[in-house]
Amino acid sequence: MPASKSPVPASRSRVPAGREVDWLLFNIDWLVTCDAEMTRFASGAVAIEGDSLAAVGPSCELLNLFRGRVEADLRGYLLMPGLVNTHTHAAMSIFRGVADDMPLKTWLEEIIFPLENAFINPDSVYLGTLLSAVEMLKSGTTSFCDGYFFEESAARAALNAGIRGIMGQGVLDFPAPDLPDSSKFQSRAEAFLSNFPGDCGRVRPSLFCHAPYTCAPRTLTRIKELCRSHKILFQTHLSETAGEVEEIMNRYGRRPAMLLDSLGVLDELTLCAHGIWLSHDEIHSIARSGASISHCPESAMKLGSGVAPVPEMISLGVKVGLGTDGCASNNDLDLFSEIDFAAKVHKVFKNDPLACPAEQALRMATLGGASVLGLENEIGSIEPGKKADLIALSLNQPHLTPIYDPVSHIVYAARGSDVRFVWVDGQQIVKDGRVLSVDETEVISEATRMGLEIRRKIR
Amino acid sequence: MPASKSPVPASRSRVPAGREVDWLLFNIDWLVTCDAEMTRFASGAVAIEGDSLAAVGPSCELLNLFRGRVEADLRGYLLMPGLVNTHTHAAMSIFRGVADDMPLKTWLEEIIFPLENAFINPDSVYLGTLLSAVEMLKSGTTSFCDGYFFEESAARAALNAGIRGIMGQGVLDFPAPDLPDSSKFQSRAEAFLSNFPGDCGRVRPSLFCHAPYTCAPRTLTRIKELCRSHKILFQTHLSETAGEVEEIMNRYGRRPAMLLDSLGVLDELTLCAHGIWLSHDEIHSIARSGASISHCPESAMKLGSGVAPVPEMISLGVKVGLGTDGCASNNDLDLFSEIDFAAKVHKVFKNDPLACPAEQALRMATLGGASVLGLENEIGSIEPGKKADLIALSLNQPHLTPIYDPVSHIVYAARGSDVRFVWVDGQQIVKDGRVLSVDETEVISEATRMGLEIRRKIR
Repeated sequence: MPASKSPVPASRSRVPAGREVDWLLFNIDWLVTCDAEMTRFASGAVAIEGDSLAAVGPSCELLNLFRGRVEADLRGYLLMPGLVNTHTHAAMSIFRGVADDMPLKTWLEEIIFPLENAFINPDSVYLGTLLSAVEMLKSGTTSFCDGYFFEESAARAALNAGIRGIMGQGVLDFPAPDLPDSSKFQSRAEAFLSNFPGDCGRVRPSLFCHAPYTCAPRTLTRIKELCRSHKILFQTHLSETAGEVEEIMNRYGRRPAMLLDSLGVLDELTLCAHGIWLSHDEIHSIARSGASISHCPESAMKLGSGVAPVPEMISLGVKVGLGTDGCASNNDLDLFSEIDFAAKVHKVFKNDPLACPAEQALRMATLGGASVLGLENEIGSIEPGKKADLIALSLNQPHLTPIYDPVSHIVYAARGSDVRFVWVDGQQIVKDGRVLSVDETEVISEATRMGLEIRRKIR
Repeated sequence: MPASKSPVPASRSRVPAGREVDWLLFNIDWLVTCDAEMTRFASGAVAIEGDSLAAVGPSCELLNLFRGRVEADLRGYLLMPGLVNTHTHAAMSIFRGVADDMPLKTWLEEIIFPLENAFINPDSVYLGTLLSAVEMLKSGTTSFCDGYFFEESAARAALNAGIRGIMGQGVLDFPAPDLPDSSKFQSRAEAFLSNFPGDCGRVRPSLFCHAPYTCAPRTLTRIKELCRSHKILFQTHLSETAGEVEEIMNRYGRRPAMLLDSLGVLDELTLCAHGIWLSHDEIHSIARSGASISHCPESAMKLGSGVAPVPEMISLGVKVGLGTDGCASNNDLDLFSEIDFAAKVHKVFKNDPLACPAEQALRMATLGGASVLGLENEIGSIEPGKKADLIALSLNQPHLTPIYDPVSHIVYAARGSDVRFVWVDGQQIVKDGRVLSVDETEVISEATRMGLEIRRKIR
């Protein structure tokens, strides 16, 4: 398998000519663009200029038109857009597997909330987010949409790791690790937005109202107003369990999505995580409003919460992306596995092998995911002018052999561990399976140390 | 990560003393024995003598009692028994992903059967089984239970690959690639048993009646009789779809498991694959008979067939193992992924996060799997006297960090790609992620060539 050696630098058999670009990736066995037509090229190529894609097409064409400052022969590889994880709580990786096989309420109230009170601070959020960023990058996720506390620290971790991030500062009407007095939620949110680290390019702010059952209508509307005035994404959990729907019905006399709609909170920059227990009318309201859903099948399955009506949502025009949820309830951040679960769970749930076909599942993790974040013109597919967020999977492996349709393999056979090279904004961030931006070994050691400290506390 | 280097040979800090054994694996971060109590050792060790385990326990103890001809420092690794795949059609890997997202009947009759007629012969069965054996070994499966045609060729592939196999020669009342005249099924089965390659140690024969809807009662009883006289495993598909249950009801006036029971086909050496559409009475009959079930959640989900009532089966005393099914309907043979699907699908299907807890899911892939094959005294757990079928997973990876409970990680976060070392019968078969028994690159090239040939035919 000579192609599994580092593809940088590589030579081609002719004298390079044409326009100079930063990177020319050529001889790609399968280039799966994930554009609207799910165009695939056998023997494809891409040219990268700065942070963007200058050209995409057959290898033979691009080799005539471009020469790269760096050229990479990707024979034996599949190239596709970096995956988009539309819902996670990245810092919770420090609690990975701390408790499983419990109802959501018990798990949250008896395990997670006490642990968060004891261990969540700016340092642990930085470390946990960095650990998750490394895990995501290595497994092919180049963009993630986060929601947690001390989100400034999470943003710094994303900046340093080189991953693309939408960083949602958590808001709720209960004391939080970063806001003991919850009445000050608005000034906390404003401070987060004014002090947001970085230039709001690759890493951008967002606000995340925990849920309609933990945030009063006034909290929801004020935070949404703040998001509107800053033109940023508003996030909330929505109808994850049947119990919370009942609670909202008892409190407000209407179902949760109807409540959000009546508050004017649903629009094209509102992302609702889960959306499992939605009525037909609620799905219609969400579709009409332009709001979108982050579908997190593994977490919902593990917590026994239910199966979101994704085929119905999509057929009614709701934008749906995929998410891993926090990896304390999954328990990893491998979006390839999430695609596989999504494609399979709807088939068995509806007793219909035609439900959620491979292309639909893949779309939720690429262009669909980009679209729920409002980034469909920047990422989610390999098209000229878009950001060069790319991942290369090694095909010379038994579980990916033989190959009839690359999309089938991406959905049903590939895993995050097949990813060998990753580019974000045209920068190579993973090379030969190793993250270049941070010291992976050091991150793992520090997270291991923190895990031992947490373990001492809970035993 | 120094521990991710080859652990062979390694030195310890003291002069070796004690009884000499073939291998001493020590300093294992987590030794998960998968015995009846699911015993875990932090810093464990195992001593291997010949094909068997001489001792299992804390590293400090075994280092005093044994010295190894080869010693391996497994700091940074998790050691567990090799996984047991109780249902597959290994040779079908050559059709991996050839067609997805179709009903079982269409998929079988319009795609798979014609392809089998055109391409299944002793050579393709050998190659496909070898490809699958390499995939299984690399992803931690050390034993598999197969069912296909030209099964002598499959057995030769298993022998050469160094994997443990129960090789089921397929029988059905329709023309098959290796038996155009199905009336001769009995002499075909007898010839298979008399000419079975090898010494029936690591690789053993079995007979596989395709299903009650494709095998007449006379076929089922004769083949079961032959199995009884040879003391070998009898296999059949059972109640995979609601449609076939209806067909059997119409034909015989009783449900499929009741039919098998009335024919005297169910006993402790009968393994039924799937068992999705079973009534309460059928589950009781299976439990009473001692027959067992191979649960294949991913294939059943992908084909939209249904969710087998596994929690009920286990609570009523049915032995249940896990299987991948043929990887043309999965589309890989990674049993770690299958464990994860099993643990999650029952929770969401029953809306109960306590259903199929992590230990139960793991047991189905280890001791439970061994027990459905009648091998519970030989494999499936790390216990003195048992065969040394072992796998070591590298823990120094972001998706396995931090670690609170190794069983949680095995079930919810690990993947086949985490497996770095594999021993079968005390022989090291995978080292640093590479198969030693066969030339992996050559197997992949040949399977790729065959895939291209098949692709030309179907386009």
